[in-house]
Amino acid sequence: MKHFLSIDDLDREQFEALLDLGEQFIAVNQREIPKLPVLRGKVVASLFYEDSTRTRLSFETAAKRLSCDVMTFSVASSSVKKGESLRDTVQTVAAMGIDAIVVRHPSAGAPLRITDWTDASVINAGDGRHAHPTQALLDMLTLRRHRGPSLDGLRVAIVGDVRHSRVARSDVKALHLLGAHITLVAPPTLLPESLEGWPVQVAYDLDDVISEVDVVMLLRMQFERQQQALFPTVREYTARYGLTSARAERLKPDALIMHPGPMNRGVEIAAEVADGPASLVIEQVANGVAARQAVLYTLLGSGAPVA
Amino acid sequence: MKHFLSIDDLDREQFEALLDLGEQFIAVNQREIPKLPVLRGKVVASLFYEDSTRTRLSFETAAKRLSCDVMTFSVASSSVKKGESLRDTVQTVAAMGIDAIVVRHPSAGAPLRITDWTDASVINAGDGRHAHPTQALLDMLTLRRHRGPSLDGLRVAIVGDVRHSRVARSDVKALHLLGAHITLVAPPTLLPESLEGWPVQVAYDLDDVISEVDVVMLLRMQFERQQQALFPTVREYTARYGLTSARAERLKPDALIMHPGPMNRGVEIAAEVADGPASLVIEQVANGVAARQAVLYTLLGSGAPVA
Amino acid sequence: MKHFLSIDDLDREQFEALLDLGEQFIAVNQREIPKLPVLRGKVVASLFYEDSTRTRLSFETAAKRLSCDVMTFSVASSSVKKGESLRDTVQTVAAMGIDAIVVRHPSAGAPLRITDWTDASVINAGDGRHAHPTQALLDMLTLRRHRGPSLDGLRVAIVGDVRHSRVARSDVKALHLLGAHITLVAPPTLLPESLEGWPVQVAYDLDDVISEVDVVMLLRMQFERQQQALFPTVREYTARYGLTSARAERLKPDALIMHPGPMNRGVEIAAEVADGPASLVIEQVANGVAARQAVLYTLLGSGAPVA
Repeated sequence: MKHFLSIDDLDREQFEALLDLGEQFIAVNQREIPKLPVLRGKVVASLFYEDSTRTRLSFETAAKRLSCDVMTFSVASSSVKKGESLRDTVQTVAAMGIDAIVVRHPSAGAPLRITDWTDASVINAGDGRHAHPTQALLDMLTLRRHRGPSLDGLRVAIVGDVRHSRVARSDVKALHLLGAHITLVAPPTLLPESLEGWPVQVAYDLDDVISEVDVVMLLRMQFERQQQALFPTVREYTARYGLTSARAERLKPDALIMHPGPMNRGVEIAAEVADGPASLVIEQVANGVAARQAVLYTLLGSGAPVA
Repeated sequence: MKHFLSIDDLDREQFEALLDLGEQFIAVNQREIPKLPVLRGKVVASLFYEDSTRTRLSFETAAKRLSCDVMTFSVASSSVKKGESLRDTVQTVAAMGIDAIVVRHPSAGAPLRITDWTDASVINAGDGRHAHPTQALLDMLTLRRHRGPSLDGLRVAIVGDVRHSRVARSDVKALHLLGAHITLVAPPTLLPESLEGWPVQVAYDLDDVISEVDVVMLLRMQFERQQQALFPTVREYTARYGLTSARAERLKPDALIMHPGPMNRGVEIAAEVADGPASLVIEQVANGVAARQAVLYTLLGSGAPVA
Repeated sequence: MKHFLSIDDLDREQFEALLDLGEQFIAVNQREIPKLPVLRGKVVASLFYEDSTRTRLSFETAAKRLSCDVMTFSVASSSVKKGESLRDTVQTVAAMGIDAIVVRHPSAGAPLRITDWTDASVINAGDGRHAHPTQALLDMLTLRRHRGPSLDGLRVAIVGDVRHSRVARSDVKALHLLGAHITLVAPPTLLPESLEGWPVQVAYDLDDVISEVDVVMLLRMQFERQQQALFPTVREYTARYGLTSARAERLKPDALIMHPGPMNRGVEIAAEVADGPASLVIEQVANGVAARQAVLYTLLGSGAPVA
């Protein structure tokens, strides 16, 4: 495996190998000193064309735990502001000598294009509405620890702004790959224009499915990506699609709640629910580091077992 | 000691132990290679909700000298801009696996609240007008090297914008703990509304005390924090409260001059005075690294003597 | 050698010693793990008063490859915004304990002034229109690998916005030191007001010289530095001074094309030419890391041969 661009590129066996590796890094990360020398001397560059301290820190923490050096290319203070093209920026960063480049970009497909311009491994950290495959990896890693080893037949609702969500797109593919049943829950305005080929069912009312699912994955309401009003008011959205305390009480006793963060508390999720025992939100963040270690180790490592 | 939030939390013995440790790190820092492996593998996150390269770099330098890994959470390009709560940000950073979090925040009490949300050690790098305890530690470390080992009976004037100053609040507590006599010197508009419980005397005219004190601690005029005009003009402020060259000549021959920086040269301190032999300003910065090493080592170290 | 401020400070022997060292680091950088422990424990601070991720990353990569610790002083979020003087900022950074400071500043001469305020080595990473000596070093390193060992008699055209270009000023000095013949090619409005003392010829038309030169060094059109219109339109500039595909065909078969980046594709250089076989643009970036390693090693190293 040379790049990590989309769940589409993986078969079930490859994906499960990444999950197994992620499990091992979760164990390593619980040691007193979680640092491993396995990628010493390797250089990982992060190139973020959208703000995201959360994902960037997760990748950089993963890289440092494996003893990589990290170069942070901050677009805000860079030649990009002077009008440099993506290609020239990538080739410049690559020419300084890097082994992998972690890219977030507002345009779908940017990471794939980058693979033509560098010999380094390219890792997609989110591109437009297209994909966010390491998020899907960490979500599956988290689910498997609670409902695994198999997710076959698991019933998962993905709720909210699916239309603008690369997380939803990658999670749907990953859940399907592992055999789960997926229901998208959203008003029609927040669903993609076409769902042709999506292995999902659709519900327009969260109350119709809330008592039947094993997992609720809430999506962040991306106010910053919506160029027009796609629902009447935030209050009305919360009333119909928010995971309020009342609604959470109708969940099955062992149902799990996930959110990729950052959360809009009081909008898509009530604060008490976010902090309640069914919530995996914090564990998702912790597993995110392990998931990214698994990807870096797979792309850059020797193939030897993790010590 | 688990956290480092305020001088209030320390008794004299604990504070002096930190000062002794600071002395040892000053010595270590004068070695050809000042790096020690004592906190190898520990991760320190810095989370600054106010701009401060100065304090942040000092902490990060201290952490790296002890071989910690450092994660810098830059609020300017973070989920905070997307409306994430302080609690969610802290829990997210903490979930990535950190041992200490260094926090600067505009709200008094934010670092204390954070201790409820993470198992990591919390270090206050300045919260609102409340406290800046590592500044007080480095100030006392600097004074003790020049007037120590005891500060009992030392006469210190703290001059300027006490009202908005967390540095003044922490220095008053630290000086009092070590037995010094403190005089606040400021116009009434730049003093706190109440001084009840403050172990200080007050003077409204710097000329009344200038010839009697052993130390003058100048405060930065915080133009950026003042929402209204608290004194007629800058020129008038300097005329009455600035440490001009003329006024500096009336100091006792061995009097010392301190300023936490960044200085407004020509406002609270004349350029010649700032650069003169009585000024400890640069030494304060150097000792700041040692003071923060002492705090990190106390919170995260094994308790073994520094090598 | 204590500082690295301008090509003027070097004689030919010193400059060639730096080039020889640069060659060695190019070889080291091609190893599987290019990291050397030669400057372990040394601290390099970068202090950039102008945006430049490109040059800053190149220096930081060079420093890390030599096992230095790097402190990045980001002016955008610093005390500088609170009005701190350059001198106070430098003395503050220096007091934290650094061995070298890499400075970029909009004012010519700022790095030289800084040498009065710190014991650390000062490296000029670009000051106003004055000098950018590490760019000249990397350019000569690149040329020598293709046309060396001697550049005596090499014919080089430097084309474009010479007036605002510190790159041009440093390259002219370096090329002259090594015996090359230099022709500046630009409209009169983009040439310096006086060329007295410059060891150059001047041409006002690129077509007059294009078929005779061995090397074309294109300069970035610095739209952000021009306060008035210095040429009628971008299209007209490109028509007369851009290295278009048609013009590139008139180059000698083995002529070389250089650009310091970031490029304005379609303005001073056509995209096909930038990516063509005669272009050294990417190699310049790679050699930039080696050139900066050579400077750091010369200023901070033991003088021992590179392992």
